[in-house]
Amino acid sequence: MKNPVERIRDRLIAGDSQKAVLVFSECNRRYFTEFPSDIGILLITADEAYLLQDFRYEEAAGYSAKNCKVVGFKKIYETLCELLEKHGVKQVYLEINKLSVSQARKFEKELGGKGIEVVLDETLDNAIKDQRMIKSPEEVKKIEASQAITDAAFEHILPFIKEGVTERELALEIEFFMRKNGADGVAFDLIVAAGKSGSQCHAVPSQNTVQKGDFITMDTGALLDGYHSDMTRTVALGKVSDEQRKVYETVLEAQMAVINAVKPGMVCKDVDKIARDIIEKDYPGAFGHGLGHGVGFEIHEWPAFSSKDETVCQEGMVITDEPGVYLPAQYGVRIEDMLLITADGCRSLTKSPKELIEL
Amino acid sequence: MKNPVERIRDRLIAGDSQKAVLVFSECNRRYFTEFPSDIGILLITADEAYLLQDFRYEEAAGYSAKNCKVVGFKKIYETLCELLEKHGVKQVYLEINKLSVSQARKFEKELGGKGIEVVLDETLDNAIKDQRMIKSPEEVKKIEASQAITDAAFEHILPFIKEGVTERELALEIEFFMRKNGADGVAFDLIVAAGKSGSQCHAVPSQNTVQKGDFITMDTGALLDGYHSDMTRTVALGKVSDEQRKVYETVLEAQMAVINAVKPGMVCKDVDKIARDIIEKDYPGAFGHGLGHGVGFEIHEWPAFSSKDETVCQEGMVITDEPGVYLPAQYGVRIEDMLLITADGCRSLTKSPKELIEL
Repeated sequence: MKNPVERIRDRLIAGDSQKAVLVFSECNRRYFTEFPSDIGILLITADEAYLLQDFRYEEAAGYSAKNCKVVGFKKIYETLCELLEKHGVKQVYLEINKLSVSQARKFEKELGGKGIEVVLDETLDNAIKDQRMIKSPEEVKKIEASQAITDAAFEHILPFIKEGVTERELALEIEFFMRKNGADGVAFDLIVAAGKSGSQCHAVPSQNTVQKGDFITMDTGALLDGYHSDMTRTVALGKVSDEQRKVYETVLEAQMAVINAVKPGMVCKDVDKIARDIIEKDYPGAFGHGLGHGVGFEIHEWPAFSSKDETVCQEGMVITDEPGVYLPAQYGVRIEDMLLITADGCRSLTKSPKELIEL
Repeated sequence: MKNPVERIRDRLIAGDSQKAVLVFSECNRRYFTEFPSDIGILLITADEAYLLQDFRYEEAAGYSAKNCKVVGFKKIYETLCELLEKHGVKQVYLEINKLSVSQARKFEKELGGKGIEVVLDETLDNAIKDQRMIKSPEEVKKIEASQAITDAAFEHILPFIKEGVTERELALEIEFFMRKNGADGVAFDLIVAAGKSGSQCHAVPSQNTVQKGDFITMDTGALLDGYHSDMTRTVALGKVSDEQRKVYETVLEAQMAVINAVKPGMVCKDVDKIARDIIEKDYPGAFGHGLGHGVGFEIHEWPAFSSKDETVCQEGMVITDEPGVYLPAQYGVRIEDMLLITADGCRSLTKSPKELIEL
């Protein structure tokens, strides 16, 4: 597969030297160049790509930014306009889903003044979305490396789950383990929810303590080399009741049904329905969120993978499969894997066990 | 002092029931309501304030969001338009520095269709900026509580600084200490730079190890209850050379000169110049960034506090005072406190010692 700069150039510029792409958002700048920085612009022309960086990052970018030349700037618009004029660019695409209204106006003013048209429609956003939605083999490897840390953290945390430990202590222990084992950070604010807290699907870890008979839901993920992982497991402290077991088995059945069904050509909302129908039969209204989401360079990316998402599944997508049942004031269960859609089905990138663990 | 919702209402709505404020950005939504959530809208009318939240957050927001009523939504624009029509609103202010081009267009389409004018100039951004720049006593207490963790972490880390320890190990130890001692997170990616790495002012902690005679610069801060702290200290492992000591003393002299001079009525760039002149005399060009920045609900907020910033200092501002000297391929020194501007001067919110520590 071509590198990300070549892919976007093929789609939007296609040899037309009057066209260029400006990537301004921090996230997409890093996606294209693999270089993290908090300010800068990536300019992609028909035959070059330049990463404009200031004093603080210029040296480091020179060592490690990929797919581009690094150019230092004192005044970013001045340097940008010089490059645009040197290449004879007359039209530039911008990311309107990322650029603020005031940033867009600044580009219009500075570039418009030089007779360069600023395209403020979704052309560039859609091209980046389509491209980022399909992961390259290198990206899949990075997601798997991130998930390997998440899997290891799950194994690590089980002996810490005891009566009286707080959700917050567990969340911190998971995070510290990930960081000490090479993660650059966590993929999102980790969720640990025990007992009644588990009925809120986005519970924040608190001083709430784990008790015998509780379900403990842990939604965790590492961040490594720019790529996120995302996994949820629900375990129990001690033996669960028959009703709890039935809830768990229903969620697992729904989760597995998706793994067995999803493949290229299916519409996302139809995949969501497979899981939803299984849960709705016994627990109507208890699955109050979408089935999953794309994951990769951002923790929530495309496709949306909800009951309304009309996106067609394609080979190379990485999506989460995370049905849940939430019983208010009682407990909740969610089970989540990351799935890579393959030519004829899917492959789970998650290695942690899913049968009910009663600690 | 009135609460943040009342302050913005007094300034922008002033009893005119046809006007309303829509706060869409995650950061400002939290600033006004003290409730963290990743989606939602805060609507402030002449006599009410509503926080629109979806299924995932509605229950939790009901318990803890301040200065507003919580309203659940299934379709956010539908619920928003109902409330706007109920209150007879004809004109709404939006944050153009935070809203993306496509979000702004969506508001224009949905609200414009109901005959409501969407104001897309900097009125709301400027009002929020002016308001957030002046901290309430409650906000100062929160920043001090955050800094108390940062101070404790500095004391904690000193015995860990030994020959052979890596920058990354030190950064992780500081972060873990902060988190275990109540911080919700770190205020930014912590910087630990030893020896030559210290000449890059935004060095990323690496496997580089500390050696005898090194300066170790640690730029650290905690995040607590939404508020950031920010402190830099440079310490040495073993005895420093006379030249190193001179650099350290020069930076400290510049840093202290600001503390002794800053007061309401001074222009920020003139304060920057006080520190810069001291450094330029012996180390021309070695202080390659601005003197500091506002800090509070975001790690970098207003004023910019650089050599170009024309903002006038006012009582209640919290700014960093962080001059540095960076000698390429040799080492760097930076010393940073947070200062609260008071009626007749400033008060440092930072308690850690500043005399040179030779470990």
